[in-house]
Amino acid sequence: MKRTLGTCYYPEHWPEEIWEADARRMAEAGLTWIRIGEFAWSRLEPSPGDLRFDWLDRAIEVLGQTGLKVVLGTPTATPPRWMIDRHPDMVAVDVNGHPRKFGSRRHYCFSHEGYRQESDRIVTLIAERYGKNPHVAAWQTDNEYGCHDTIISYSEAARDAFRLWLKARYGTVEALNRAWGNVFWSMDYLSFDDIDLPNLTVTEPNPSHTLAFRRFSSDQVVHFNKRQVNIIRAHSDAPISHNYMGRITDFDHFKVGDDLDIATWDSYPLGFLEDRVGADDAHKRTFMRQGDPDFQAFHHDLYRAVGRGRWWVMEQQPGPVNWAPYNPAPLPGMMRLWAWEAYAHGAEAVCYFRWRQAPFAQEQMHAGMLRPDNADAPALIEARQVADELRNAPDVSAPQAPVALIFDYEADFAWTTQPHGAGLSYFQLVFDTYKALRKIGVSVDIVRGETRDFTGYRIVAAPGLIYMPQDLKQALAEANAPVVLGPRTAARNADMVVPVPLPPDMPGLEVTVSRVESLRPDMPMALTGGGAFSGYREELETAADVVLKLETGEPAVVRQDHLIYVGGWGDATALQRIYRPLCEEAGIATRELSGGVRCRDTDGFRIWTNYGAEAAETPAGRIEAAGVLFEKL
Amino acid sequence: MKRTLGTCYYPEHWPEEIWEADARRMAEAGLTWIRIGEFAWSRLEPSPGDLRFDWLDRAIEVLGQTGLKVVLGTPTATPPRWMIDRHPDMVAVDVNGHPRKFGSRRHYCFSHEGYRQESDRIVTLIAERYGKNPHVAAWQTDNEYGCHDTIISYSEAARDAFRLWLKARYGTVEALNRAWGNVFWSMDYLSFDDIDLPNLTVTEPNPSHTLAFRRFSSDQVVHFNKRQVNIIRAHSDAPISHNYMGRITDFDHFKVGDDLDIATWDSYPLGFLEDRVGADDAHKRTFMRQGDPDFQAFHHDLYRAVGRGRWWVMEQQPGPVNWAPYNPAPLPGMMRLWAWEAYAHGAEAVCYFRWRQAPFAQEQMHAGMLRPDNADAPALIEARQVADELRNAPDVSAPQAPVALIFDYEADFAWTTQPHGAGLSYFQLVFDTYKALRKIGVSVDIVRGETRDFTGYRIVAAPGLIYMPQDLKQALAEANAPVVLGPRTAARNADMVVPVPLPPDMPGLEVTVSRVESLRPDMPMALTGGGAFSGYREELETAADVVLKLETGEPAVVRQDHLIYVGGWGDATALQRIYRPLCEEAGIATRELSGGVRCRDTDGFRIWTNYGAEAAETPAGRIEAAGVLFEKL
Amino acid sequence: MKRTLGTCYYPEHWPEEIWEADARRMAEAGLTWIRIGEFAWSRLEPSPGDLRFDWLDRAIEVLGQTGLKVVLGTPTATPPRWMIDRHPDMVAVDVNGHPRKFGSRRHYCFSHEGYRQESDRIVTLIAERYGKNPHVAAWQTDNEYGCHDTIISYSEAARDAFRLWLKARYGTVEALNRAWGNVFWSMDYLSFDDIDLPNLTVTEPNPSHTLAFRRFSSDQVVHFNKRQVNIIRAHSDAPISHNYMGRITDFDHFKVGDDLDIATWDSYPLGFLEDRVGADDAHKRTFMRQGDPDFQAFHHDLYRAVGRGRWWVMEQQPGPVNWAPYNPAPLPGMMRLWAWEAYAHGAEAVCYFRWRQAPFAQEQMHAGMLRPDNADAPALIEARQVADELRNAPDVSAPQAPVALIFDYEADFAWTTQPHGAGLSYFQLVFDTYKALRKIGVSVDIVRGETRDFTGYRIVAAPGLIYMPQDLKQALAEANAPVVLGPRTAARNADMVVPVPLPPDMPGLEVTVSRVESLRPDMPMALTGGGAFSGYREELETAADVVLKLETGEPAVVRQDHLIYVGGWGDATALQRIYRPLCEEAGIATRELSGGVRCRDTDGFRIWTNYGAEAAETPAGRIEAAGVLFEKL
Repeated sequence: MKRTLGTCYYPEHWPEEIWEADARRMAEAGLTWIRIGEFAWSRLEPSPGDLRFDWLDRAIEVLGQTGLKVVLGTPTATPPRWMIDRHPDMVAVDVNGHPRKFGSRRHYCFSHEGYRQESDRIVTLIAERYGKNPHVAAWQTDNEYGCHDTIISYSEAARDAFRLWLKARYGTVEALNRAWGNVFWSMDYLSFDDIDLPNLTVTEPNPSHTLAFRRFSSDQVVHFNKRQVNIIRAHSDAPISHNYMGRITDFDHFKVGDDLDIATWDSYPLGFLEDRVGADDAHKRTFMRQGDPDFQAFHHDLYRAVGRGRWWVMEQQPGPVNWAPYNPAPLPGMMRLWAWEAYAHGAEAVCYFRWRQAPFAQEQMHAGMLRPDNADAPALIEARQVADELRNAPDVSAPQAPVALIFDYEADFAWTTQPHGAGLSYFQLVFDTYKALRKIGVSVDIVRGETRDFTGYRIVAAPGLIYMPQDLKQALAEANAPVVLGPRTAARNADMVVPVPLPPDMPGLEVTVSRVESLRPDMPMALTGGGAFSGYREELETAADVVLKLETGEPAVVRQDHLIYVGGWGDATALQRIYRPLCEEAGIATRELSGGVRCRDTDGFRIWTNYGAEAAETPAGRIEAAGVLFEKL
Repeated sequence: MKRTLGTCYYPEHWPEEIWEADARRMAEAGLTWIRIGEFAWSRLEPSPGDLRFDWLDRAIEVLGQTGLKVVLGTPTATPPRWMIDRHPDMVAVDVNGHPRKFGSRRHYCFSHEGYRQESDRIVTLIAERYGKNPHVAAWQTDNEYGCHDTIISYSEAARDAFRLWLKARYGTVEALNRAWGNVFWSMDYLSFDDIDLPNLTVTEPNPSHTLAFRRFSSDQVVHFNKRQVNIIRAHSDAPISHNYMGRITDFDHFKVGDDLDIATWDSYPLGFLEDRVGADDAHKRTFMRQGDPDFQAFHHDLYRAVGRGRWWVMEQQPGPVNWAPYNPAPLPGMMRLWAWEAYAHGAEAVCYFRWRQAPFAQEQMHAGMLRPDNADAPALIEARQVADELRNAPDVSAPQAPVALIFDYEADFAWTTQPHGAGLSYFQLVFDTYKALRKIGVSVDIVRGETRDFTGYRIVAAPGLIYMPQDLKQALAEANAPVVLGPRTAARNADMVVPVPLPPDMPGLEVTVSRVESLRPDMPMALTGGGAFSGYREELETAADVVLKLETGEPAVVRQDHLIYVGGWGDATALQRIYRPLCEEAGIATRELSGGVRCRDTDGFRIWTNYGAEAAETPAGRIEAAGVLFEKL
Repeated sequence: MKRTLGTCYYPEHWPEEIWEADARRMAEAGLTWIRIGEFAWSRLEPSPGDLRFDWLDRAIEVLGQTGLKVVLGTPTATPPRWMIDRHPDMVAVDVNGHPRKFGSRRHYCFSHEGYRQESDRIVTLIAERYGKNPHVAAWQTDNEYGCHDTIISYSEAARDAFRLWLKARYGTVEALNRAWGNVFWSMDYLSFDDIDLPNLTVTEPNPSHTLAFRRFSSDQVVHFNKRQVNIIRAHSDAPISHNYMGRITDFDHFKVGDDLDIATWDSYPLGFLEDRVGADDAHKRTFMRQGDPDFQAFHHDLYRAVGRGRWWVMEQQPGPVNWAPYNPAPLPGMMRLWAWEAYAHGAEAVCYFRWRQAPFAQEQMHAGMLRPDNADAPALIEARQVADELRNAPDVSAPQAPVALIFDYEADFAWTTQPHGAGLSYFQLVFDTYKALRKIGVSVDIVRGETRDFTGYRIVAAPGLIYMPQDLKQALAEANAPVVLGPRTAARNADMVVPVPLPPDMPGLEVTVSRVESLRPDMPMALTGGGAFSGYREELETAADVVLKLETGEPAVVRQDHLIYVGGWGDATALQRIYRPLCEEAGIATRELSGGVRCRDTDGFRIWTNYGAEAAETPAGRIEAAGVLFEKL
């Protein structure tokens, strides 16, 4: 498959006179894809009904004539100010009940039917006009669903829609009361209209209530997106994408992805390191100018799954950004490294955000490929190098990896609803597992929770799947590979209630979790032989073989046939002690990687990357700081 | 006196078919008391006026027939959802002005007359129906007043009631203006209707205003509770109790207790350690699975005083809980230890919360005596051991202790209003004093601030009594034992104004506090000979003898006859240097206890407990980790 | 010039019988100035229109007859409670949209025209009555503008006034959209009435929007103050002042000062150390009882500039205060030291706040010159010593210093709008520069951003001037002294947009800042030879001489002729490496001061102060802890 480069461009930000020079310079730099339009509503429709598409016609024409392909965004992430006059209650409401006002972006509630119709209207206008345009080679819906904590809204629109959603799910309010255990604190409802949103309660609301609201909120995003997709598809054959973010788990990306053709994501390694990786200060210092060595890879593998194989980086950090607590410049070479790492994980395209740094407004301190004064910025220079390398590089593709790692947004909703211990999160648990595998050089496929066919995988890792439908249990019980379960496997039913018999209640695995506890992070429980459970552990009643035990003598990891149960949150050492022998058993080669060196296998090539600030040795030779190394397999 | 065991049971949570088996199993385990009903309103009155008491009739009958005694709770802590439709403004309002919505519990404002009448109504119905029921052997009003910060409400109902309360207290608004010094920043009021609640002011409100509002808020609880008590008494001769919490000081428990027959409290040692003890991380690590070695004892002694001798543990932690930042399992033996420690302090009953772990709703992760799958949980096993031991144990009672320690809720209101230094609290000061005495093996009676007769006590400790009425001053001046005063003794008048002459202005004690200062916690002021004042100290003008002095040469602790004044916040060493010689002088034996070992004297027995995770030596012999040792006196 | 002492007095707090004794005691202590009246509105007009000036007439008479001079305050910082009934919407609104209620002080929004007219009314009444009173020798407007975060208000009054302000500034909404780059996220407005205040937006608002709102908010203070000044001037010839605070930068003090005759400020060294200096814990421990050795001096120099040479300390900390996290007592001698330090910087008067400690209301724990029981407090004793010393002391004045340091409130507005890295602030940058100069014994004049004539200065320091009008660039380019620029010099245009050509675009200085980055504070970038850039640095393209470079080899500080550009935030060592050679070049003597020793040159005398808790050596001899030393020049 052909790998490509691109960028994000805002013709509406610049005088029309310079569009053509910009386009030529993009093409000369080796770029293919140009995303435009996603924030342009106020220029497409300056006042209600006053449509001005002519400039966009010309911009697309200029880009297309230069041989560039356009990704056209729908502008619904930034409705103009006049929209608020039409629909004063369309904005989201925060957890304290305050409307989230106009003045930046994403100022809408997904549940507001009035705004959904406005979205239909503008998307229809755009799709009708550009659906057959030969230069519009792909679409993007909206922009970064979930950014700025915009999935959960406590508006009246959300409340009314939630009641309908509940009625559809439970049929009768008696069924809901039963399913949620509302008897507990006299929380029984007499009608769906009694049910409020779970904010501002005196103490925590019923976790069944919270989980239902999280599922509902996710479904509202799926619905909103699908309406746009349906409209575009009616007018265009070009593939449709959405640009997701890093570590946003407030909606089910797989379900949104089901309606799209390509998953893309916005990768900001330095910003994410400070903000979202969850690392300690020492780690942040070490990787301040490079980003976490595993965080991007994790999302590449995640979004490859969300896109069912087709995925891009739609926005690649091009230099310092503006929004993290600290905004350092990347080490020279990182903009190239990030691109190659994406290709190693199967990316079709990597687009740097953005073409020219905007000197005005919120992102005036966000680097671009050009400086505000039109000089080349480092990102353009490194992009040119990648473009050169791509011309000579063999096509690489992402073959099925030996290990499947299940990531399930519903599990994240449930853990977020009830982490049980401060700081525990499903995302972190899965990411810790991913890191452990990557540190021993193993390539991973992330698969969604709905997966039932694990054919071809030599290990299946399913940490933290707090709810597990019976057919998934069955599929794993019948899998042809070691399956690693726990902690919290099947610890709740679909309504967030503890099941009886006690979990995991897994066919073929004689393990019962008799009691669980969360621990202070500074009080880990050591395993005999090294490593520890940290933050969370379970007491196991079991007839299975004990693989690892706690220093107290209690079983920690047990196994029966191909089913392995991990009764706690393993630290890095514990996870390696679990997975390394399984790899050996499964015939998966492992290696010991240190510092920032990582590798990923593609067809024919192993691609090494070095996130370290110093050169390092690999089995394939020396790799420079911020370097990339291609090892022929 | 006979010591007993019990549990909390929710028949409405379980199929009626299993009630009888549950009851038999409770009886077989040696339990006596079963508390029920306190969250059952939505099942007693599913819709307004639709009363369904039949199931409760049968549940009480099943329990009673098995020989168990019922403690019947009034269900007012959890009014049903329909109540909010009747009284939309009945919910409390938080400090930011947000209504605290339905969806958990304690969703009412104590000042709302409409809800108070609903409370009267349901309590009347229950008292009429069960007042003469032979199995209902005790009552509980509401549940955990003050839990989830529910005493202070900034509602309109509270505001209106506060104005009436102020009018009753001050008579005229001119008197109020004078008493509060409202001239200070032109805060004079022309009418009681001008007076708002002291939240959302530009900077801090007048401390006299805040203190009055805290007193008012406390009185509202007393009033609410008393209305329930009056109704129950009209129909029943069984004793009435309320279950208080740990370290909640937002209302005067003594005044609520004046209307009740028994004080009970809900003891969650591991949850409290993380949340409320105020210890450092090292201490929390050491006692992670045992709880603080003094926190429970303090509350036992406190609630013995609140109950005028009659007190229980109504809810005893039975395993991991769900609500603390971290929720570890107790060390084996702790559930037994906690029970015996309660008996050592005079508890009539210890009830484990709860019988069977609820698999649903907010407390699904809160352990019970049974697991959700009906298997014995560790609490049941340890409770059986306690029951066995109780059968053979001599009756123990709590004799008058040699030391009286005054605890005064009004003083806490005043300190909370004006701590003067970050982190300073009255509760902590009194608790530090308690810990110092307990570390030298001395048993303590906590006595209320209204105490005037100290007969029989060999030491009276009165730390931090920021307001002291003249007759208390007189009583202490005439006491027949050393009296330890300060810091902040009598530093304010009844309206939170600095008195002239300057404090403490104590008959028989020539000490004047000429100036006070709060200190950074990392800048303690060392005492000559060891120990320090930390966080707070006073400059003393004095003709009394200097007992301890600062390394600066200034007097720190002074004495005149039997009156000792402590001019600062002593650390553990300082407090021992103050109290150990006084004990010697008073003929109170002391010992040096280390780690988690503590002891408490009952009639005939000294009961030793070991909160340590290792065995330890005591004068009475070796005590196991989490062990209890009975030393015959 | 004659140096004087004074105090703040509240006759309305005390029985009229003691006024005369108080006045005599003030005079005997050597005090000259007595500020009164600034919180007395509720006693001047207890109910609407019911004027009671008679007591104030008598109070002024008593003071004046004793030879004291009165500073009369307008009482607008504390409108009475009945004012809220007249103008319910007059209060400010906080960032969350909550009205900031009555019950303390400063409960008004500067934009509320109704309240502005009430202010006019009461000021007119007072000015008419006392404008010719011979004892009223000075005026104060309102009290501590900006204290308790009271400049920025999100009220409807503010919103409406902001729209008018914007219209006046931009003329058309199209011009505003262009200037702000509102195209960025479809933020274009169709009308000024569309523009809301920049709070509660989904993510950060446009920085141009925020900066405009900060400028507007500052202008509202200037307008409010000027209305009072105009009224007073119409009736009185006495000078008019306002008492500013420490480290409040929410309004342009220079612009308020333009309408006044004298700048005064309220100096609370110990409270500020904990709260506002921004020091680490070690520094706070070292100076816990003395205050930061540079913070007061900085403000003295700042307010000398604001007052165009005429300035006072209107409130001098007299002992422990009540409002800081910790409130220790000053080291003996500090109350004298602070006074002499103020005189060294040119203060005309130092007034201790307050005469007698109020036993009631919010500041009951704030020391006075008298204790509540009328005994001398330490402040009175030290003030008497200062008064004695003043009698014999030569008149000292503050000559022009050799170094001009520019401080520009607009720059602070812009940095606050966009610090770019957590913890970075313009105030801190300028203060760090000030400290570096003071640590080498150099006296500094602070000058405002509008300064164009730098005649007489031998060094001009202009750190962080993020916006620089062309004529300031020109003035600096033509200055006759070394000019130290950077970081962020001219990095934005007047509307908070990055200019092209890139900054600093300074005539005579071939430097372009090609890229900037913010850094973790624990990842400084070392300079070759010592010192580092910390938190922020810039990449420089330059043809100028490299003065200091980073260990990476990149230029850090460059110079072309007299223009020096500093491409980062220098630590203390870096700043000394920059300024010490410049001083040598400029013929300014430097010395190495350590610990808490500082000096300031006046005409004829160098005044040494020692903020240290130990005695120290100076070139002029030994100086005691908390001591003052006069060196004849």
